[in-house]
Amino acid sequence: MKIRNLQRVEKRNAYPRGKAKGVSLRVAIAEEDGAQDLTMRIYEVDPGGYTPLHSHPWEHALFVVRGSGKILDGKNERRFERNDVLFIPADEKHQIKNNGEENLVVVSVIPIQEE
Amino acid sequence: MKIRNLQRVEKRNAYPRGKAKGVSLRVAIAEEDGAQDLTMRIYEVDPGGYTPLHSHPWEHALFVVRGSGKILDGKNERRFERNDVLFIPADEKHQIKNNGEENLVVVSVIPIQEE
Repeated sequence: MKIRNLQRVEKRNAYPRGKAKGVSLRVAIAEEDGAQDLTMRIYEVDPGGYTPLHSHPWEHALFVVRGSGKILDGKNERRFERNDVLFIPADEKHQIKNNGEENLVVVSVIPIQEE
Repeated sequence: MKIRNLQRVEKRNAYPRGKAKGVSLRVAIAEEDGAQDLTMRIYEVDPGGYTPLHSHPWEHALFVVRGSGKILDGKNERRFERNDVLFIPADEKHQIKNNGEENLVVVSVIPIQEE
């Protein structure tokens, strides 16, 4: 079993410059921990920050720990807030923006991809 | 994409009576939502409550949203608190106890089992 506090996990930029703004991540659980089926990352988005509009061939489960924001798919947008759960099926476009006044903190879990 | 607030998800007892105390769960993301690889549940443990000491053949990722407690494997115990991440490999025994004074709220993600 592994236990680690978020504050002790290195925080780094989540996306290449220019593609996103004010998004960092901490890798909380990964293959190096012995995980075989899923990984957990914690994303933080500054007020005014956003991820790229992107998609990937794996599904994506999110839990909003702090703050609020909106999620866009290129056509529509929906608001979310603390204690919301978001599920994004594989290959669905999504972009997250923090249009609130405090940092947005989101727990993100994805399956480990089989080769 | 699905978004739901925890408060709107039905809360139910997590374990049969006698095996645990004061543990409830909300199923936040499941196969009915189109999930193919992972499910997310939110557990709540009352002060003084505990899960059974148990194991299962799938790995288990946890994020502590609120409160604190301890996790036991039948021999040792370790403390955890808010903003801690816990990883329990497949088949490893674990029991969670809330020995704090506020409700313990934990996001739990497990892989969907292949038949």
